[in-house]
Amino acid sequence: MPDKPPQAGIDHTQWPDILEDVRSIVLPALTHWQSPGFFGYFPANGSWPAVLGDLISTGLGVQGMLWQTGPAITEVETRMLDWMAHLGGLPDRFLSTGAGGGVIQGTASEATLVAMVAARHRFRKAHPHTNPGTLVAYTSNQAHSSVLKATRIAGIEHLRLIATDANHAMDTEALRTKINEDLNAGLTPFYICATAGSTSSGAFDPIDRIAAVRAEHCPDAWVHVDAAWAGSATVCPEHRWFLEGVEHADSYCTNPHKWLLTNFDCDLFYIADRANLIDAMSVTPEYLRNSATDSGEVIDYRDWQVPLGRRFRALKLWFVMRHYGAEGLRAHIRQHVAWTEWLERQVLADDRFELAAPRSLSLLCLRLTGDRDHETKALLEAANATGRVLLTHTTLPDADGRERSTIRVAIGGMGNTFESVQALWQLLTELADAATSDAT
Amino acid sequence: MPDKPPQAGIDHTQWPDILEDVRSIVLPALTHWQSPGFFGYFPANGSWPAVLGDLISTGLGVQGMLWQTGPAITEVETRMLDWMAHLGGLPDRFLSTGAGGGVIQGTASEATLVAMVAARHRFRKAHPHTNPGTLVAYTSNQAHSSVLKATRIAGIEHLRLIATDANHAMDTEALRTKINEDLNAGLTPFYICATAGSTSSGAFDPIDRIAAVRAEHCPDAWVHVDAAWAGSATVCPEHRWFLEGVEHADSYCTNPHKWLLTNFDCDLFYIADRANLIDAMSVTPEYLRNSATDSGEVIDYRDWQVPLGRRFRALKLWFVMRHYGAEGLRAHIRQHVAWTEWLERQVLADDRFELAAPRSLSLLCLRLTGDRDHETKALLEAANATGRVLLTHTTLPDADGRERSTIRVAIGGMGNTFESVQALWQLLTELADAATSDAT
Repeated sequence: MPDKPPQAGIDHTQWPDILEDVRSIVLPALTHWQSPGFFGYFPANGSWPAVLGDLISTGLGVQGMLWQTGPAITEVETRMLDWMAHLGGLPDRFLSTGAGGGVIQGTASEATLVAMVAARHRFRKAHPHTNPGTLVAYTSNQAHSSVLKATRIAGIEHLRLIATDANHAMDTEALRTKINEDLNAGLTPFYICATAGSTSSGAFDPIDRIAAVRAEHCPDAWVHVDAAWAGSATVCPEHRWFLEGVEHADSYCTNPHKWLLTNFDCDLFYIADRANLIDAMSVTPEYLRNSATDSGEVIDYRDWQVPLGRRFRALKLWFVMRHYGAEGLRAHIRQHVAWTEWLERQVLADDRFELAAPRSLSLLCLRLTGDRDHETKALLEAANATGRVLLTHTTLPDADGRERSTIRVAIGGMGNTFESVQALWQLLTELADAATSDAT
Repeated sequence: MPDKPPQAGIDHTQWPDILEDVRSIVLPALTHWQSPGFFGYFPANGSWPAVLGDLISTGLGVQGMLWQTGPAITEVETRMLDWMAHLGGLPDRFLSTGAGGGVIQGTASEATLVAMVAARHRFRKAHPHTNPGTLVAYTSNQAHSSVLKATRIAGIEHLRLIATDANHAMDTEALRTKINEDLNAGLTPFYICATAGSTSSGAFDPIDRIAAVRAEHCPDAWVHVDAAWAGSATVCPEHRWFLEGVEHADSYCTNPHKWLLTNFDCDLFYIADRANLIDAMSVTPEYLRNSATDSGEVIDYRDWQVPLGRRFRALKLWFVMRHYGAEGLRAHIRQHVAWTEWLERQVLADDRFELAAPRSLSLLCLRLTGDRDHETKALLEAANATGRVLLTHTTLPDADGRERSTIRVAIGGMGNTFESVQALWQLLTELADAATSDAT
């Protein structure tokens, strides 16, 4: 690509040149998240109904910062968030019909951050003389990096990464101990982020027990539940057990852009008492004042998020729910879980591999059997080097607490098929044989 | 719309029902930002080349959080930001070829926030014993509400809204005085946000003089320049004068999604020393580690922004620049400025109206002549009530410092034409006559 922008424009007859550049320059240098062989990170779902909804949103070119700048942008979004709450079996406290409600954030990182800002605001309102430098946030040592990032952005000085149990879920006794140590040291617990489906292994923190610790030791602290990936599975009643206790949470989020057919960006953020967030974030200069806002009867979503401007993202969610229906969404989740169960059975039946963690929905973590971290990592790199699959690496502690090299297989991409999962397993076993014969 | 989501999905033969719902439910309840009569807020530009770029981005479904998760997403973005820096005449320090570089943020609000976080990080690194509770941010009393919002999110306790001069630009002597008062009180100036094109009136803070005050009194403070709207005009050499001194700024942002043909969201954020931002924001768990990042030779844009995930937004910018070329972008800006100059001449020649501020590029602020705030606001409401135009209200201080009701006419929307500007003027004069005959 040239160093400088072109001086002259083109007419439509030259557009094939641009598209040829996309083909020849861009496509070869992309990581193909929608490939059948993509099993890395978490999936980035999309679908043609969502693409169409997004296209209409882009074409309309409307701005939903205030109710008044596009009533339908706000009203459709509120309705869609209520629909999704029904679909996922969320408690009524998160519905817009009460004191709570939902909003589309760009990402779970933003949800984690705005929950933290609301938590601080509520805490300091109740305890105005608290020194902000004493505030402490808590999450598990398996939580997403966005919790640490949020503390850096929000200027929170203390974050505790709580120890986890054998299944990589937060150890609530360790949480209790740490909170008490901090209280005794004059510090102020104000925010706990529970993870429902951790990034490394899909572990589920026990929300009910975390809420009980909070109630006992720091009742004014906020509990946020980050179900960025796993939350999509709650459209199936059999995959809701891990939200037990969410009725005690102050906020909750999940990302349909990961595993529910809706193109990025689409994080659903729910809050039990929206006034906490609005109080924390609302700033109304004269140029944004209007009779609808002044009436107090409408939602201005700019007060629920970091940015002011906002796209009409609810359209794509609406189109996805209309097109697939609850049944279609459940079928989408269930097929991926079934393929992952198949893969789990292969691993369990094969002496060359062992599970590094219990299967979590459509995420399977595995490693070579025995003390072979180096070979596990080499196998992963050899698999990726074929260009036929993409897998990502993590480490997980074993029974002795030692961090062990781990291959994550995240199923659920739009390109994944049962055949592509079978092909992955075939490749892994071939490479395991090669690794074994190299070693002997 | 129903209260609950549908259980069953549909097939493609039922899609006309969905599109009919868009027509009958959504469209009548939108504020039409692309209408010829839309002169409110600032414009929300879009164009078919940008829509096409966005569509390809959505369809590819790729994630640019790391260089490795899509090298082209990162590389094209870096190149486009360099192109835009050349186009706008930005100093070399903001190019990626040195220590600086640019990134696409969602909005200017996010740019203001990440600049503040980087500023705090740099300051505390240089002065580790500073009490964060003493940090003070500065901006003018005409600055965008996002500066206040950023302090709330970042947990900055002190924000000074500096007085403005007769043209509504920051009074740098008042800034100097306030900084010295704060230093004498044991507080710590760390961040100054200069506005290049304020929301109410398009006022330009004197960047060079602000930088001089900083150099003299608080050399470790950060200067961020918010040119969210006006920055688009810098593609024309004759509209760059207001960036004098930007070579002393630590960061700068402008939004092509306002006035440069590129659909939302697209804020260009430039930083002079990217290490400050990356140091402040970077968190690398094992599941995001990769050989490209470890090499230190690539950009991972997740460290430049609040979210982790990111869309391929550079495509739309590339398509816009390819399609229009520098000449086309200049013509776009110049026609809007010319229409606004025409409107300014009408106002100056008409005794019924007066300017509330000097015309700024394509923004004109006016009011009824004399002490008629109530009538000015009523006129604006009457104009909006016709449904033919949309104007937004603000207040601006007059020569006596009294806040006066003001009509903002923001030209530059994709639907605006010279004819629609003429029709607006026709409407305003008719309503002014009616207001006058009502009063007599």
